[in-house]
Amino acid sequence: MSGNSIGRLFTLTTFGESHGPALGAIVDGCPPGLELGENDLMADVERRRTARSRFTSQRREPDRVRILSGIFEGLTTGTPIGLLVENVDQRPKDYAAIRDRFRPGHADYSYQQKYGIRDYRGGGRSSARETVMRVAAGAIARKYLRLRLGVEIYGYLRQLGPIRLEPVDLGSVDHNPFFCPDPVRVPELETYMKALAKEGNSIGARIDIVARGIPPGLGEPVFDKLSADIAHALMGINAVKGVEIGAGFAVVEQKGTEHRDAITPQGFASNHAGGILGGISSGQDIHVSIALKPTSSLRLPCATIDANGEPVELVTHGRHDPCVGLRATPIAEAMLALTLMDHYLRHRAQNADVERQPATVPGSVDAGDRRP
Amino acid sequence: MSGNSIGRLFTLTTFGESHGPALGAIVDGCPPGLELGENDLMADVERRRTARSRFTSQRREPDRVRILSGIFEGLTTGTPIGLLVENVDQRPKDYAAIRDRFRPGHADYSYQQKYGIRDYRGGGRSSARETVMRVAAGAIARKYLRLRLGVEIYGYLRQLGPIRLEPVDLGSVDHNPFFCPDPVRVPELETYMKALAKEGNSIGARIDIVARGIPPGLGEPVFDKLSADIAHALMGINAVKGVEIGAGFAVVEQKGTEHRDAITPQGFASNHAGGILGGISSGQDIHVSIALKPTSSLRLPCATIDANGEPVELVTHGRHDPCVGLRATPIAEAMLALTLMDHYLRHRAQNADVERQPATVPGSVDAGDRRP
Amino acid sequence: MSGNSIGRLFTLTTFGESHGPALGAIVDGCPPGLELGENDLMADVERRRTARSRFTSQRREPDRVRILSGIFEGLTTGTPIGLLVENVDQRPKDYAAIRDRFRPGHADYSYQQKYGIRDYRGGGRSSARETVMRVAAGAIARKYLRLRLGVEIYGYLRQLGPIRLEPVDLGSVDHNPFFCPDPVRVPELETYMKALAKEGNSIGARIDIVARGIPPGLGEPVFDKLSADIAHALMGINAVKGVEIGAGFAVVEQKGTEHRDAITPQGFASNHAGGILGGISSGQDIHVSIALKPTSSLRLPCATIDANGEPVELVTHGRHDPCVGLRATPIAEAMLALTLMDHYLRHRAQNADVERQPATVPGSVDAGDRRP
Amino acid sequence: MSGNSIGRLFTLTTFGESHGPALGAIVDGCPPGLELGENDLMADVERRRTARSRFTSQRREPDRVRILSGIFEGLTTGTPIGLLVENVDQRPKDYAAIRDRFRPGHADYSYQQKYGIRDYRGGGRSSARETVMRVAAGAIARKYLRLRLGVEIYGYLRQLGPIRLEPVDLGSVDHNPFFCPDPVRVPELETYMKALAKEGNSIGARIDIVARGIPPGLGEPVFDKLSADIAHALMGINAVKGVEIGAGFAVVEQKGTEHRDAITPQGFASNHAGGILGGISSGQDIHVSIALKPTSSLRLPCATIDANGEPVELVTHGRHDPCVGLRATPIAEAMLALTLMDHYLRHRAQNADVERQPATVPGSVDAGDRRP
Repeated sequence: MSGNSIGRLFTLTTFGESHGPALGAIVDGCPPGLELGENDLMADVERRRTARSRFTSQRREPDRVRILSGIFEGLTTGTPIGLLVENVDQRPKDYAAIRDRFRPGHADYSYQQKYGIRDYRGGGRSSARETVMRVAAGAIARKYLRLRLGVEIYGYLRQLGPIRLEPVDLGSVDHNPFFCPDPVRVPELETYMKALAKEGNSIGARIDIVARGIPPGLGEPVFDKLSADIAHALMGINAVKGVEIGAGFAVVEQKGTEHRDAITPQGFASNHAGGILGGISSGQDIHVSIALKPTSSLRLPCATIDANGEPVELVTHGRHDPCVGLRATPIAEAMLALTLMDHYLRHRAQNADVERQPATVPGSVDAGDRRP
Repeated sequence: MSGNSIGRLFTLTTFGESHGPALGAIVDGCPPGLELGENDLMADVERRRTARSRFTSQRREPDRVRILSGIFEGLTTGTPIGLLVENVDQRPKDYAAIRDRFRPGHADYSYQQKYGIRDYRGGGRSSARETVMRVAAGAIARKYLRLRLGVEIYGYLRQLGPIRLEPVDLGSVDHNPFFCPDPVRVPELETYMKALAKEGNSIGARIDIVARGIPPGLGEPVFDKLSADIAHALMGINAVKGVEIGAGFAVVEQKGTEHRDAITPQGFASNHAGGILGGISSGQDIHVSIALKPTSSLRLPCATIDANGEPVELVTHGRHDPCVGLRATPIAEAMLALTLMDHYLRHRAQNADVERQPATVPGSVDAGDRRP
Repeated sequence: MSGNSIGRLFTLTTFGESHGPALGAIVDGCPPGLELGENDLMADVERRRTARSRFTSQRREPDRVRILSGIFEGLTTGTPIGLLVENVDQRPKDYAAIRDRFRPGHADYSYQQKYGIRDYRGGGRSSARETVMRVAAGAIARKYLRLRLGVEIYGYLRQLGPIRLEPVDLGSVDHNPFFCPDPVRVPELETYMKALAKEGNSIGARIDIVARGIPPGLGEPVFDKLSADIAHALMGINAVKGVEIGAGFAVVEQKGTEHRDAITPQGFASNHAGGILGGISSGQDIHVSIALKPTSSLRLPCATIDANGEPVELVTHGRHDPCVGLRATPIAEAMLALTLMDHYLRHRAQNADVERQPATVPGSVDAGDRRP
Repeated sequence: MSGNSIGRLFTLTTFGESHGPALGAIVDGCPPGLELGENDLMADVERRRTARSRFTSQRREPDRVRILSGIFEGLTTGTPIGLLVENVDQRPKDYAAIRDRFRPGHADYSYQQKYGIRDYRGGGRSSARETVMRVAAGAIARKYLRLRLGVEIYGYLRQLGPIRLEPVDLGSVDHNPFFCPDPVRVPELETYMKALAKEGNSIGARIDIVARGIPPGLGEPVFDKLSADIAHALMGINAVKGVEIGAGFAVVEQKGTEHRDAITPQGFASNHAGGILGGISSGQDIHVSIALKPTSSLRLPCATIDANGEPVELVTHGRHDPCVGLRATPIAEAMLALTLMDHYLRHRAQNADVERQPATVPGSVDAGDRRP
């Protein structure tokens, strides 16, 4: 319970450091009888890999995920699923320079204060490399939700620094290195990233994630609202500094007549709520948006202190993502899938015998939705 | 574990409906030996009460909190603290009209789908009345943090609809009904709210909350980052649709050189991180911002459906807040206090014997901070 | 999470001291739609009350349990159920003598070491008075299990000091103050207890509890075996020092051919397993047996130390049970009911869509069972 | 939360099947700065290995435990510790015969009912092979408790079928294949086991475990009593059917004057309580005793049913322990170590600043203790 587990019933626990021998995870609570193999995991893991393009870290990891338990003759058995990925492309020597100094904007200082010791190689446990296990586990949740409930989860780059994007063509998202939902704008992103690389700087990003086909009734009313648990899951991704549900911060300037989503027998007339009412899913699309900060590891120097508290200047070498947001889409999708899966099981535990309500509106009309 | 508990070690569990006989809570895990009485709780509970001004719900509840256990001779004993507030000003008859129809923008529809039954009187469990227990419990956490660690937690109205405010005078926050941190702007808020009332409409708001004096090292690195648990706690407040830590969504357009907070022996040179690095507190002020949606209960009619799925029009009467954000400040402070207290105990459990680090910078310079 | 909650999905959290103003509890996770009223709780609470006979403590508490939330129009709503019992017959002055000395065999010394403070009045939180909330909450679980699954849970006195009893007539258990399952032996128990009272001494007891009609499949394979969680629940009752499942300690001398329960299409041929195989219910009766120690509070003097560590002699006055085991039957039944209910929901969460197996044997033949 | 995790703050989560590719575990919450290497784990793992003698299963597994994370330069870092053991000596074909029939006394039937599917090879997840991870993780807890608190944990065979043993020479326990604490009696045990093997039968056993040097104050008062959590941990070991604390079931016939342990400035005068008062450690030795059932897998035939519910006869081949109790000592020690470690952290979280009490007696005199 040092925070390396997530979920109450569909639970993911992970271990592993950036430059240790391996990363691993245990997924507990998966329903039995689900068709599952390593290839199911690899599809999403491939999408988050580094070195897919020149715009991400050049660390080259095959990220071959092995399933070590919990599957028998191609089906989940209900027992815990052990996952393992060996680290291959470690270069711990790259990090000798930061052994005794704290990188600004990184966890170096706070880890040292917390534990009195830290594995400084590539950030150790604080590295985004840890997220490979989230994506692998999320793929299990996602497969269950898709096969059993018809849920589709997808995400895309919504904004890169000053460049705002609209989800014009969701089918194109996986065919460019930016998860950009508008193929026409890809060259613009390329130009921007090249200039940034030349400058030696980094940039923030906004990612949107949507879950379609979620049944109404998921989420718990008070502290564990579906929105609260989604916020927990997504704010727990490295570099995330903000989370919005539905209209998000735009609600601050909305009036009640504008915000409230009218209900008709044909469905909701809009979706400012982002698919969650009173912490419980309404059956509409669930819309989430997150903000990712720019990487702090730059070759441009910055003031910091060393292990003795003396002022020093730091220049970071090594292999870093100039925009961590560029690889965040599959991670964010995975975290949303894990949260929804967990709440599906929680809901089923308490309410499995509740009868379907006479007044149920179709999924969602989404007419007034700010996203497609 | 139907989501009515929060915290792993300093745990709050609540019960109670808007128009039931009483609201109650159990606070478990409080360290022993803390001087505590009912008056300690009432100070904060008073701040969140309805009917403090003409701009909040006119329901008149004395909200007298009784402590039923866990205190002996004025000190906490380490055993659970039972809290109780009787509901006095119930008017369940006000709600007969919504028995068979679902208020748009409310939990009526989603509760019905989840449980197949709902206490429709005043929203039942989904009412903001439930938050009185959060505030009472938060006062316990806050007192411990202040007395033992010197932590101060404060919040204020940052934006009301189109009106943006700056924290000019924090001392004035509790002396106006808006928790406005700029006394000069209070008349402007009054004028805005009066016009809104006349119109019969409601409006959203943004609240900022700050914790000062937090020791470095609180928070868990991966899923239970301090930022993630804060997001969970605050997104779990009724009507909240967005949460930001530090620079929040502004990071999307920040470059790395701008965002990263340089470290000097005199302290951090800025605080875009909002006091949290890699999910762990850095010792700087913790800055959080939340967005609250406008109330959906209006006397202006809205389309909806009834229990049989037939289209109907709804006009809501009863006593409602035209801006739920106006009473959210003490609730948000309480949720932050509960989260910090819980993480303080979590940290102490694992790391109580870690020695103080040689390289520790003073609290925070906050020079470049976007907030004072 | 200071141990005042039990259950993962059907959760009970309690508060209250022996001589504080009230005892209370929150039951979270109850499925909606269950017919429930205060009378459902009172039936079991009455069975555990003190002063039912001259052989139990003479403290006279009406133990009127109020339900403060979670019920609407006679049905559970799925929201938390708040319970409250006011303490009426407090006599804190009886306990001034133990303010500064530690009663041997009691929690006085260990509480003082743990918390540095203790509510010494009647043992404070360590008093068996706390169990009234367990019985009230257990009645909710029991009602659900009976109405929805046809489960019956019953217990009885199996041994009182040297007197061993057989479950000859279960129908008679509630008609004598000993929960004795053999009406012919009641006078013998009365004679024994009268002699004990004269002597000023106390005695231990053994209680058996059985759950009949449990569906196969409840329990989790590894750490949270159904047997393990039952052991946790029952060893958590005040004064319990031993727990057995099925044949219990008798297995030490059993051979494999004797112990293993053969399976036939007509059912299991015996039940040495006590209804649990590999931590999972088999559909047979679940058999549990517990040992309760004798009360240590006696008018016969005992050596102890005072708050300064000086040797003193202690004589305990006040109102005590000469055999705490005599009132333990409803408490043990309640704890078993809570555990089974929790595991029923846990099972349903993960396995709700598992199809009924072709090879299912009828409940249990129990031919070779050592108990009827 | 399908029961494959144990502990609240010092948490062990395991995965792996008897004949799958590997077994693994994640230990979360270990304090940082503890000197730890694979050899620390191997000492205990070696003690539980099969094929140490002719009296245990002849499966030959090297059980080489790898540490994959959480250690840096020989010290724990506070991040999760990943553990892995490859399975080497799998013989899944041995189990074809039980694919379609349920072994009496095993989890086959209950797993099938629960999940609708099972990995029948060697019992899959229900195999005692899973306990290798418990022993490896327990070694971490044990090392911390020994180095930081001076706690020693040891166990021994107390009874094998009809043969009762006394702890005459604890130093000899590890020098015979039975964990027998009386070297003179070892030949008697050998003779008994040889006769049993000839017969093709199996036998039960009783194991005692003691923790010495535990500080007073560990354990939570109500549901999570130290005794309750020990019972949970030990009843969760395969084949365990009974757990006793201190005098255990002997309390049934004890009078209060006999049971209660007098307190003197020199220590407690006896230890019938087994080191736990009111659920909290007293500083005396913690004494636990468990009963393990005989293996049900025998070459002697037994009636059972097949997957279609038809009656069949079963003869079990494969490699089985004729007395599972013979290898249970290190497993039971590990589970006790894990529980104590977890409660040490839980206690520290809430009570780290409680001052040492003036009235503290030395460890324990144990004069009247039934065990040395």
